[in-house]
Amino acid sequence: MSTVDLNSDLGEGFGHWTLGDDDALLDVVTSANVACGFHASDPLIMARVCERAVQSDVAIGAQVGYRDLPGFGRRFIDVEPDALRADVLYQLGALDGFARVAGSRVRYVKPHGALYNTIVHHEEQAAAVVRAVVDYDASLPVLGLPGSAWLRLAGEAGLTVVHEAFADRAYTPEGTLVSRRLPGAVLHDAEEIAARCVAMATGEPVTDVEGGQLVLRPASICVHGDTPGAVEIARTVRDRLTAAGVELAPFAP
Amino acid sequence: MSTVDLNSDLGEGFGHWTLGDDDALLDVVTSANVACGFHASDPLIMARVCERAVQSDVAIGAQVGYRDLPGFGRRFIDVEPDALRADVLYQLGALDGFARVAGSRVRYVKPHGALYNTIVHHEEQAAAVVRAVVDYDASLPVLGLPGSAWLRLAGEAGLTVVHEAFADRAYTPEGTLVSRRLPGAVLHDAEEIAARCVAMATGEPVTDVEGGQLVLRPASICVHGDTPGAVEIARTVRDRLTAAGVELAPFAP
Amino acid sequence: MSTVDLNSDLGEGFGHWTLGDDDALLDVVTSANVACGFHASDPLIMARVCERAVQSDVAIGAQVGYRDLPGFGRRFIDVEPDALRADVLYQLGALDGFARVAGSRVRYVKPHGALYNTIVHHEEQAAAVVRAVVDYDASLPVLGLPGSAWLRLAGEAGLTVVHEAFADRAYTPEGTLVSRRLPGAVLHDAEEIAARCVAMATGEPVTDVEGGQLVLRPASICVHGDTPGAVEIARTVRDRLTAAGVELAPFAP
Amino acid sequence: MSTVDLNSDLGEGFGHWTLGDDDALLDVVTSANVACGFHASDPLIMARVCERAVQSDVAIGAQVGYRDLPGFGRRFIDVEPDALRADVLYQLGALDGFARVAGSRVRYVKPHGALYNTIVHHEEQAAAVVRAVVDYDASLPVLGLPGSAWLRLAGEAGLTVVHEAFADRAYTPEGTLVSRRLPGAVLHDAEEIAARCVAMATGEPVTDVEGGQLVLRPASICVHGDTPGAVEIARTVRDRLTAAGVELAPFAP
Repeated sequence: MSTVDLNSDLGEGFGHWTLGDDDALLDVVTSANVACGFHASDPLIMARVCERAVQSDVAIGAQVGYRDLPGFGRRFIDVEPDALRADVLYQLGALDGFARVAGSRVRYVKPHGALYNTIVHHEEQAAAVVRAVVDYDASLPVLGLPGSAWLRLAGEAGLTVVHEAFADRAYTPEGTLVSRRLPGAVLHDAEEIAARCVAMATGEPVTDVEGGQLVLRPASICVHGDTPGAVEIARTVRDRLTAAGVELAPFAP
Repeated sequence: MSTVDLNSDLGEGFGHWTLGDDDALLDVVTSANVACGFHASDPLIMARVCERAVQSDVAIGAQVGYRDLPGFGRRFIDVEPDALRADVLYQLGALDGFARVAGSRVRYVKPHGALYNTIVHHEEQAAAVVRAVVDYDASLPVLGLPGSAWLRLAGEAGLTVVHEAFADRAYTPEGTLVSRRLPGAVLHDAEEIAARCVAMATGEPVTDVEGGQLVLRPASICVHGDTPGAVEIARTVRDRLTAAGVELAPFAP
Repeated sequence: MSTVDLNSDLGEGFGHWTLGDDDALLDVVTSANVACGFHASDPLIMARVCERAVQSDVAIGAQVGYRDLPGFGRRFIDVEPDALRADVLYQLGALDGFARVAGSRVRYVKPHGALYNTIVHHEEQAAAVVRAVVDYDASLPVLGLPGSAWLRLAGEAGLTVVHEAFADRAYTPEGTLVSRRLPGAVLHDAEEIAARCVAMATGEPVTDVEGGQLVLRPASICVHGDTPGAVEIARTVRDRLTAAGVELAPFAP
Repeated sequence: MSTVDLNSDLGEGFGHWTLGDDDALLDVVTSANVACGFHASDPLIMARVCERAVQSDVAIGAQVGYRDLPGFGRRFIDVEPDALRADVLYQLGALDGFARVAGSRVRYVKPHGALYNTIVHHEEQAAAVVRAVVDYDASLPVLGLPGSAWLRLAGEAGLTVVHEAFADRAYTPEGTLVSRRLPGAVLHDAEEIAARCVAMATGEPVTDVEGGQLVLRPASICVHGDTPGAVEIARTVRDRLTAAGVELAPFAP
C-alpha cells in the first residue's frame, strides 16, 4: 500500500486578521506547517493551532520565514547568515514551546514564501537555515524541493531530507515548477488536481507542461487552504487518495 | 556561610541599538534576566547572550514583557489573559531554544517593566503569567517581590517562589519599595549600596526610609547595568559581598 | 430637508490580510475613517483608499489609534501624553500625505477602538489627542460621542465638535450606549436599524433600551462594514435614508 | 565666496534606545536627514528633532528607508515598486506633519542605508522613490551620488538633483566611493577630513585612492554623528570650512 503525507500552511492569521480556515484544513492534512510569528501568526494563534493539531493527530512543522509581517514573508530580505540562523532558531523555539505545551513537539521544518524560494539557490542563506535546524535538533526532517541548495546542504549536514510536490502546480519535463508568471502554471480543477495527486502517491506518471510523462515520488504533497475553493480542492485530494487506497500519514516520526 | 544570587537585566539592545554592557555584567551577576524580543532584544542578541552566559556559568532567566518595542515594555497594556499567557509562552519557548542550543536552558522567569509592576496587583494578568509558567515547565522558579499577587498566585499554583530585593532602592518600614517619584527612592552611592547588599545577604537589618531597621532576606538581589555608573556599582556590590564571605551563586538549580 | 453624514471605518487590512469590503463601503458612506497604520492599514492600502474615496466624493477622516497592530488598537495602552500626541501627529501627517496626493486632504479626526473608548473619560489622553489636532490643523473637526472628555476638551480648545450615533447600537434613556456585554446591545435587523437611522436623521425619537423615547440628533451616523452582513445593513440604511428624503453629505467642509 | 551644505543623519534613536547626539549635531550641520520611523526614529523623536532643527535654522530632510526596524534599514528588501512608492509617501507625509507643526516643512529627500545603495543601480526601486517625491511635491530637491540611477531618473522627472560627497570616505579616480571592504576606504583623521572638505567646497582637488587629483564639487557634504568621535570630526569640518571663508548654508530653499 502507498503512503503519502499532505501538508499545508496553517496559522497564518495575525491578531484581528484571519487567513484561511485552519479548522477545516486540520481535518484534511496530516502535517501542518505552522507560521511562527515572523511572516504571519501570533502567540494566541500558535497556541490554538498546536492544540487542535494534536487533537487531530496532525504533525506540527515549523513554517519559518523572514521577519516581515507587512510583506507576509514574500519579499526577499538580504539578511546576514548569522542573523538568519538566529531568526530561524527563535521561531523554532517559540513554536516548539506551544507544541510541547499541547503535548507534542515540532516534527519538521519547512521555510515559507520568499525564504523558501531564496534558499533554492542562495547558498549562504540556505546554509544558515540548515545550521539553525542542526543546532536546534539534528533529528528534525526538513521539507523542500528536490534539486534545491537547501535540501542538498541539509543532506550534507546529516538532516533527513523530505521531498514535496505541489498538488496544484504544473511541472516542467525536468521536474521543476512552471513559473507562476506563465499560463497554466496553476491548476484549478479539483478532480484533475486530485487525480494527479493519486498518480504522484502511487508512483504513476503525471503529465508535464509539455505533454510528456513525469514520475514524481513525493513523500509529501502540499495543498493550499487560504481560500474557500482551496479547502474544497484539499478535501477532494484527500478523498480521492483514500478512495485509491493510499494511506495518509505524517512523514515525520 | 551566606549565599545570595545577583540578577540583572541583559540582552536589552535591539538590532542596531545597544543598551548596557552585557559582557561586563556577565562577569558580575550569577543570574541573567534575558529579554525575549517583546520589549527588547532580538534573535541575534539572545543567541549571543545565552552563549556568553553559559561560558560564564550565569543562569539564564526569561525576562518576559508586554509586546511593545516602541515603549520598551514600560507601558501597561490591557492584554486579555489568554493572549498574555500565549505571549509569555512564546517568549519562554524562544529563549529556551537559544539557551538549549548554548548548552543550558531557561532556569527561571522574571517579568519586565510594566508587566512586573502590573502583576503586583492585577490578579487576571498575574494569573495568566502563572498559567504560562505552569504550562511550560512547572519546575521553573519565578522571581518577584514579596507581597505581590504574582508570587502569591505562583505559590498557590505550586511554583517555586523566589524573593528579590533591589540593591539601589529605598524601602518603607513595611518592606515595600519607596515610589520612584519620592525623593531618596533611588540610592546612588556605590559603597552605601554595597553595604546594604551585604547586610541583606547576611541577615542584618538595613535602614528604611524612615530611619528604622528592616530585615530583608532576599534570595536574589537585583543590580542594574544600563549605565556605565551602574556597572561600577554592580562590581562594587559583588566585591563587597565576596569580601564579606558571602557566596555568590544562582538561586536556580 | 434633513441632512446626515454616514461614516465607517475603512482601510483596516494589513499587508496580505484584508478586512471588510472597502470598495463596497465607498459606495455607501459619505465619510471614510481611514486607518493610519498604527492599529491597521499600511501605506499601499492608505494610498488606494484615498484615491477611491476622492473618486467617490467621500470625505477622508483620520482614524487614529494606539500603536498596536497585534491588538488591532483594541487594548488600552498607558501611553504618556507627549508620546500619544506625537503618535497622533504622525498618523495625521501620513494620511494627509496620501489624501493630498489623491487630490483631497484629511477633513476630520475620529479615534479608533481602545483610544476612542479611553478618551471618553481619560482626561490626560483626551487632552493629548486634542493637542495633536490643534497643533496639526485647528480647523479640523473631530468626531465623537456627546458627553465625552474628548469632545468637551476639543470644544474648549476651539475645535469643531461633531456628534455621531451608532446605527446598530442600543441606547440608554440617558443617551449613552448600552454596554456590549449586555443582551440587546447590538441590533442585527437591517430594516429596524435603517428605520432608527431615518428617525435619528429627521429629529424623530428612537426607542431606548428601556422602551422610552429618545431623540438623538447626530450629524453623522456610524455604520460598519467588516462583515458581508454589515455591508448589506449599511446599504439598507443608505437606501432608507434616501427614500425618506434625507440628504447624505459629509459633515466636514 | 564658496558655499556648501553640511548634512547628517539625525533622529535615529527608537523608543528607549538612543543613537548619536542629535543636539550636538544640530549645532554643526545645516541640513538634517531626519529618520521617519521605518528604519529608525519614532513620533516623539521626530517631533523633538524637528522642533530643535527649526530653532537652529537647520533644514529638515526626509531620510526615507525600508520598513525594517530590526535591520536598521541596512538590508535590501525586494519591495514591489507600488509598495515602495507608498512606503516613501507615508514617511514623507509623517515627517512633513512634524516639520509643519514646528514651523517649517520637509525641504528635501535623502534615502537611507540599503535603499540609498540599492537605487544607485536598481532602476525599478529608484523609479518608485522618484515617483513618490514627484507625487508628493515636485519642488522637493533630492540628494544623492552623481552617476546613480536615482539621480538620473529624478532629473528626468524634473526634480532638482543635488550632489553630495562624503567627508570621511576615499574616492576612486572615477569619483566613486571606495568600497568599505577595502583598506583605506574610511578616513579617521579629523584634520585630514576637514582639509578635504575645504578643498571640495572651494573647487580644489582632493587626492584619490590611487594618489591622483580629483575635483568634486558637492553642493552638500555628509558628515556622521553616531559616535562621539564622529561629532568631533563634524565640528572640525565646520570650523575649518568657516575659517577658510566657506559659507555654510542649507542647499534647499
